[in-house]
Amino acid sequence: MRIPVPLDKSWRLINHGPVVLVSASHAGQDNVMAAAWCMALDFKPPKLAVVIAEGTHTRTLVDASRQLVIQVPPRALLDAIDGVGNCSGRDVDKWARFGLARERASVVDAPLVSGCNAWLECRVIAGEDAIHARYDLFPCEIVAAWADDAVYDAHHDGARLRDDVPPARRAVHHVAGGVYVVDGEVVRARAG
Amino acid sequence: MRIPVPLDKSWRLINHGPVVLVSASHAGQDNVMAAAWCMALDFKPPKLAVVIAEGTHTRTLVDASRQLVIQVPPRALLDAIDGVGNCSGRDVDKWARFGLARERASVVDAPLVSGCNAWLECRVIAGEDAIHARYDLFPCEIVAAWADDAVYDAHHDGARLRDDVPPARRAVHHVAGGVYVVDGEVVRARAG
Repeated sequence: MRIPVPLDKSWRLINHGPVVLVSASHAGQDNVMAAAWCMALDFKPPKLAVVIAEGTHTRTLVDASRQLVIQVPPRALLDAIDGVGNCSGRDVDKWARFGLARERASVVDAPLVSGCNAWLECRVIAGEDAIHARYDLFPCEIVAAWADDAVYDAHHDGARLRDDVPPARRAVHHVAGGVYVVDGEVVRARAG
Repeated sequence: MRIPVPLDKSWRLINHGPVVLVSASHAGQDNVMAAAWCMALDFKPPKLAVVIAEGTHTRTLVDASRQLVIQVPPRALLDAIDGVGNCSGRDVDKWARFGLARERASVVDAPLVSGCNAWLECRVIAGEDAIHARYDLFPCEIVAAWADDAVYDAHHDGARLRDDVPPARRAVHHVAGGVYVVDGEVVRARAG
């Protein structure tokens, strides 16, 4: 079940560096792509940065709408993750082709991809067109956050990754060329 | 054994979003910190972006030297990773306190932390002081790269993560507050 996460805890949902899906919408067109280059950027207000290559359909939608959703997909969606990263929404309807469902977001006009572990609704920070142009880099403010309670204990201190996430629901990390590492054991450092 | 990685393959070493150690040096002082907010930024020339908070000792060294090394530490160094992220090099000698050894880098004047899985020698890209100030974000160019051949097959196509990395040598990903996820199974998406 999708449960709201306090904004000041939202950075935790991507802090472990998983591959993410970037969804965006403009003028009635929705699209989704995969991105390995996404990270948190600040705690309060919460921000993240994501690289969205020039020339992609998602980039066109983000440039126009200035809104997007970053979501963390589970291993169960592996073929869809890799698939949406290797074709263009200009050529195919990725939702139909990869069997992805979507839901309405709470704040932004961009779809939430169903079946993910976590969702971050974002607005592109204004005034950074030079960074977009130079690095394809989009600093964004996180304006709403959600976690699935099969993966996160959303009632405990905001959002805590469960120790016992079922294998099919674990996050994946893109190494290169369709090879991914699945989240393994959860460990704790000995307090300094 | 540490083996050179071609620069055009160097992004692969951090693409899976592990926690990294950031090392820097200036005027005879070396320091090292941990960073979860680091990602690749471009393929050619290879670039990465890392967040280095204002006020940290490492930030002072990077601001002065404009050079740093990003390295991927293994699970075996978990307590050191967490430790160097929770104290300041102004107060303690982190190398001694956490038992970290260092080696000379090949191009930059910043130390390589011994026992890591991969190392990226970087120069801070000039002219981005506004981004440093606004987001504590440092776009860098990767100028030399190394991988340990116990973790990467460095002879195959540049650097390929091995399927059989021993548990103690696997990369870790910081979730929050001293909790980390260890790299698990390596999986391949079905070609689209």
